[in-house]
Amino acid sequence: MKSFIEVSADSHFPIQNLPFGVFSIAEDEISSARVGVAIGDQILDLIVISKLFEKHVPELGNPALVFSQSSLNMFMSLGKPVWQATRKFLQVILSEDNPELRDNKELRNQAFIPQKLAKMHLPANIGHYTDFYASKEHATNCGIMLRGSSALFPNWIHLPVGYHGRASSVVVSGTDLLRPRGQRSPGKDQPPVFGPSIKLDFELEMAFFVGTGNNLGEPIPIQKAEDHIFGMDPTPFPYLQEEGKTAYDIHLEAKMKPSNNDTHKTLTRSNLKYMYWSIKQQLAHHTISGCNMRTGDLCGTGTISGPSEDARGSLLEITWNGKNEIDFGNGVKRLFVEDGDEVVLTGYCQGEGYKVGFGECSGKILPAISS
Amino acid sequence: MKSFIEVSADSHFPIQNLPFGVFSIAEDEISSARVGVAIGDQILDLIVISKLFEKHVPELGNPALVFSQSSLNMFMSLGKPVWQATRKFLQVILSEDNPELRDNKELRNQAFIPQKLAKMHLPANIGHYTDFYASKEHATNCGIMLRGSSALFPNWIHLPVGYHGRASSVVVSGTDLLRPRGQRSPGKDQPPVFGPSIKLDFELEMAFFVGTGNNLGEPIPIQKAEDHIFGMDPTPFPYLQEEGKTAYDIHLEAKMKPSNNDTHKTLTRSNLKYMYWSIKQQLAHHTISGCNMRTGDLCGTGTISGPSEDARGSLLEITWNGKNEIDFGNGVKRLFVEDGDEVVLTGYCQGEGYKVGFGECSGKILPAISS
Ligand SMILES: [Ca+2]
Ligand SMILES: [Ca+2]
Ligand SMILES: [Mg+2]
Ligand SMILES: [Mg+2]
Ligand code: NI
Repeated sequence: MKSFIEVSADSHFPIQNLPFGVFSIAEDEISSARVGVAIGDQILDLIVISKLFEKHVPELGNPALVFSQSSLNMFMSLGKPVWQATRKFLQVILSEDNPELRDNKELRNQAFIPQKLAKMHLPANIGHYTDFYASKEHATNCGIMLRGSSALFPNWIHLPVGYHGRASSVVVSGTDLLRPRGQRSPGKDQPPVFGPSIKLDFELEMAFFVGTGNNLGEPIPIQKAEDHIFGMDPTPFPYLQEEGKTAYDIHLEAKMKPSNNDTHKTLTRSNLKYMYWSIKQQLAHHTISGCNMRTGDLCGTGTISGPSEDARGSLLEITWNGKNEIDFGNGVKRLFVEDGDEVVLTGYCQGEGYKVGFGECSGKILPAISS
Repeated sequence: MKSFIEVSADSHFPIQNLPFGVFSIAEDEISSARVGVAIGDQILDLIVISKLFEKHVPELGNPALVFSQSSLNMFMSLGKPVWQATRKFLQVILSEDNPELRDNKELRNQAFIPQKLAKMHLPANIGHYTDFYASKEHATNCGIMLRGSSALFPNWIHLPVGYHGRASSVVVSGTDLLRPRGQRSPGKDQPPVFGPSIKLDFELEMAFFVGTGNNLGEPIPIQKAEDHIFGMDPTPFPYLQEEGKTAYDIHLEAKMKPSNNDTHKTLTRSNLKYMYWSIKQQLAHHTISGCNMRTGDLCGTGTISGPSEDARGSLLEITWNGKNEIDFGNGVKRLFVEDGDEVVLTGYCQGEGYKVGFGECSGKILPAISS
């Protein structure tokens, strides 16, 4: 499969991928934010080709409306058969031997926007965000550091532990973040102190969006979980799926650029396949109580650490709670994230001559506000 | 202060109260859900009097738009000065000596809808829901039962503990609820078992809506917390405020009707004034890390228990974790909520000859679904 749009072998966005996103042209911002699909270093503006959707994907109903939204929620709420039909059509219309868009010079000129001219937005209106704790290696490392010998709580192997985070604080890649402040204990039997976080960390993890939700009181059975997870379409390429498992072979990396350095250093290489609890298990467990998920809800896997020391997904684990310094060269060392440091996370699957990737997610830490 | 609408002394909704809500006329449902204000046993339909708002409360901008929403979010986002001006005007226009609405027979006929003909909806589009644990008596009771002697965790007296719940499962009063299912431990060193909850409880608590939020990274100082809390206007009547404290003297009650009984039995009488951490402290603490609150976010106080045994706010405490049965008469006894039981919570302040109340919140438990 090959597109008439040139895609370098290093790109995360070949025709095999086609991730949906929300973008605007730098000048016009959120008012005109709309849905696009990444291919190579371009974005295909889906509004521009809405006439083609009307002809080839009638299931979309009103594609100009669906794709002019500033979030994917309306598209996601249409359900898996529509996601599948849409993606299938996009692969057809973008393929090198299909003339319909390829040879329509005027439409093609309007339809593609270089990624470097676009501003990306959060792809979804995120209702709720649950962060799991699904890597056994990560949970074990944390347990050993924080509680000693009884590393895993007894129920860890019976259910995917998760906590509910604030979706309001989920930001798009490239957003600077202020160091948080709060109370912490300086030691046993001492009163707490207040101030900026001193062990600020990153966590290398992945997440999925709920595409279609469930009614309060009606759990999603694990056999149907896939239908509710946005992006689980089409059926994954065989090479992405480990035999007998639902874990995907997705390379994950975290790199960091200390404030005064010019270059990033890769700190860890992990893989989604190390997860103990799959994302389908997470969704089934999340809803077993009857909890109603909604279109746009986000579920994080939790930090994904692998079995080897160079596959640890957080600074807590990499420096073993501040014991082992990381050397960035030129005398720059780190135990945790300091002000001005930038962290970049990325992930991809390696195919035969191409990558199916997630792009990069970066964030820089600014000093805490002074009261 | 008295309204031309007759209000019985027992009503929760005299002219001193005027709570905002979202309602529809039973036949036409959510499509026409809109904003109203309760007075006596009536609802004042704010769309109908939008011309009066245009004249008297220009700060509202487009009152017909604001009050035709199916949630209070747009109104809440306008900020405290607008809430105050709106409420002040409503007290003027509803007062017995103001002829403008009183003597306009046609407008008056359209503007009031009997509450018994209306269907109430959730008043807000709730982004996030945080549940605090702000009653020292409740936390102490739970601590003694679940952990023995060290009842309160050391940090409990340093910060208002809270957890983040799923706003998606907040439902309007009168909604039946399925008994949830999940894993539980039958005892130490035994594997967990799966099934319906066996100790299903209620919690007598209150909550507030965030009216206007804050930007990520910019905490709400406690001195300004009141400005962000919807409904904290006008400045509370002096009798509602304890000296030197921000706790309000609000009587709280929970009653329960077992499935086969005809009547409710009051199980507890508590009071908001027993809270250790005030709602302003809750909001200040919630945002001190930089967490961004948004219009419509909901914060619960957590179960409010008082110092006496008859002011315990949950069955866990009332039956002391299932040790002491509650006798409902006719041989009906309960330790926790059983299928078919109905729980009703209510709260009000007692003024001189009138009540300022919150109405009732009820829910009935249906059996868990069979897998
Ligand atoms: Ca996480
Ligand atoms: Ca609660
Ligand atoms: Mg985590
Ligand atoms: Mg509680
Ligand atoms: Ni939430």
